[in-house]
Amino acid sequence: MMPFQTLAEFRSLLDRLPTPDAAALAGAGARNGQLTKPPGALGRLEQVALWLAGWQGTDKPHAGRPQIVIFAGNHGVTAQGVSAFPPEVTVQMVANFAHGGAAINQLAKAFGAKLDVVPLELERPTADFTQGPAMTEAEVVAALRAGYGAVDPEADLFVAGEMGIGNTTVAAALAAALYGGTGWAGRGTGVDDAGLGRKEAAVAAGLARHAAVLGDPLEVLRCLGGRELAAMTGAILAARMHRVPVILDGFVVCAAAAVLERSVPGALDHCIAGHQSAEGAHPRLLERLGKEPLLSLGLRLGEGSGAALAIGVVQGAVACHSGMATFAEAGVAAGS
Amino acid sequence: MMPFQTLAEFRSLLDRLPTPDAAALAGAGARNGQLTKPPGALGRLEQVALWLAGWQGTDKPHAGRPQIVIFAGNHGVTAQGVSAFPPEVTVQMVANFAHGGAAINQLAKAFGAKLDVVPLELERPTADFTQGPAMTEAEVVAALRAGYGAVDPEADLFVAGEMGIGNTTVAAALAAALYGGTGWAGRGTGVDDAGLGRKEAAVAAGLARHAAVLGDPLEVLRCLGGRELAAMTGAILAARMHRVPVILDGFVVCAAAAVLERSVPGALDHCIAGHQSAEGAHPRLLERLGKEPLLSLGLRLGEGSGAALAIGVVQGAVACHSGMATFAEAGVAAGS
Repeated sequence: MMPFQTLAEFRSLLDRLPTPDAAALAGAGARNGQLTKPPGALGRLEQVALWLAGWQGTDKPHAGRPQIVIFAGNHGVTAQGVSAFPPEVTVQMVANFAHGGAAINQLAKAFGAKLDVVPLELERPTADFTQGPAMTEAEVVAALRAGYGAVDPEADLFVAGEMGIGNTTVAAALAAALYGGTGWAGRGTGVDDAGLGRKEAAVAAGLARHAAVLGDPLEVLRCLGGRELAAMTGAILAARMHRVPVILDGFVVCAAAAVLERSVPGALDHCIAGHQSAEGAHPRLLERLGKEPLLSLGLRLGEGSGAALAIGVVQGAVACHSGMATFAEAGVAAGS
Repeated sequence: MMPFQTLAEFRSLLDRLPTPDAAALAGAGARNGQLTKPPGALGRLEQVALWLAGWQGTDKPHAGRPQIVIFAGNHGVTAQGVSAFPPEVTVQMVANFAHGGAAINQLAKAFGAKLDVVPLELERPTADFTQGPAMTEAEVVAALRAGYGAVDPEADLFVAGEMGIGNTTVAAALAAALYGGTGWAGRGTGVDDAGLGRKEAAVAAGLARHAAVLGDPLEVLRCLGGRELAAMTGAILAARMHRVPVILDGFVVCAAAAVLERSVPGALDHCIAGHQSAEGAHPRLLERLGKEPLLSLGLRLGEGSGAALAIGVVQGAVACHSGMATFAEAGVAAGS
């Protein structure tokens, strides 16, 4: 069930990633060509259906059992004044998730998704990465395991979401460490110009302090990443191992996912981008991941909300692909 | 129930269009500011919820009773070789709708929408508009009335969809007549370059023949439009009179809607654009209507399919707005 106890064992999983089911993919492609519509008329929905078919191993994919897991963490880097909200809000929002009052609760209900919440030692924030490594090896492994174990292998779609005051700064540091360049920090929950300056300074300080590990994505995750980001890295890998297709959410989730992509190119082939968020650097991160978002509606909430909304699009794609009649079944003439 | 018998009576309805409920709009705006999320973090979803609130007249809008109506018509202009499919396909697809085999059947089911199909004298195509007026005044009034009467005043969301071999040519002629310019014809169900050339020629011939009526949107509809387009014009007006918010679909639906917008600016304030289709001139038509699409996924099927998919987004917006806890209810600290 839990195939790793150490960071080295986690690394070794990355050498044996499952690939899509070629027969199911071919079967779904053939079916798609016979459905009562002009070829290609369902656009991106057709690609989504085929992608699901490959990972689910069936020519009639389904999306009736989605799972959303929200990972929550606290971050020492909030000491640098990087958020418009106090760190207590993380635990308050976890209570809000438990009571069903948050946006993600409503979206989960709307699209029939199971919602789980995994708080990660909220009373014990990670260390401030501008001062030292955010986590020890034992801590990052614990977070990766918490994420890996949270994925339901019977789900037919997986969304990782997050809550953690300060975590867009953590995500910006990860993105900068993994891809280089500057300008990865953004407005997050809504910081002003001064707050944005403090975020940029924190990212720069973190990269300078941890310059020695920048070539190793998992060490980058340990030194800069928060627990909920490591948990999402673990969860997205678990989904791959279980062949559960993933819808990626916003900037923070994509930064956690990027740790896998930078470790093994193609490690995110089981993922699509649910949306492009309003967080400034998200389009740039999606581009690095080679993912085109399904939605672009200016969301910047986190909680998995953009990906949860995209579950509806995926369910629409599946409904068409798996439910439509073929030209032969319907007695409709095909085009010239 | 049916407030017009003549084109003149239809015109007079346009002088007394209902407007959004200002109190509901203000109440919904106040509520939105108290929900447990950073201000604006749900992006476009917040605007959608407020728009619905105004038209539905409640500060907690809903979207659990959507209605989709597919209007089907046949077109004399198919004699000009403007489609990749034979005209018999219209009636075959209507049968497919009845048997539940089309894409729109699956999408309606996926998002809990009631689906109605209104075939408009399929055995009697409109006249070829390159040769004369497509419809008599009696015919266009009959189609407008069929559309007006098809809208359920109890629905909380309305989608008009269409099926009609040849109708992207009709829509291109309408758009060209209403907005001027050339290049409104597109690939439709998938015509080749020669077919596209025949479409452009048909549009040009139609505009030349009916040059005298180009200043009157309803006469444009009569002379160039098909029955299903006139029915959609009627249906979209009915939705306005009943204060039922509308999600617009692709190029053909938007061309039918444009007849109202060109008659009275603001006549489509109760409508949002569900998607941007792959039909070449759709973005240009949306721009003329002042509508930004919720989705852009390369669909070009018609049947209301893009708008039906957008029902899911609207339901997500409503679920968040009407279901979330406020900061006070949840005991969460607001941002600085």
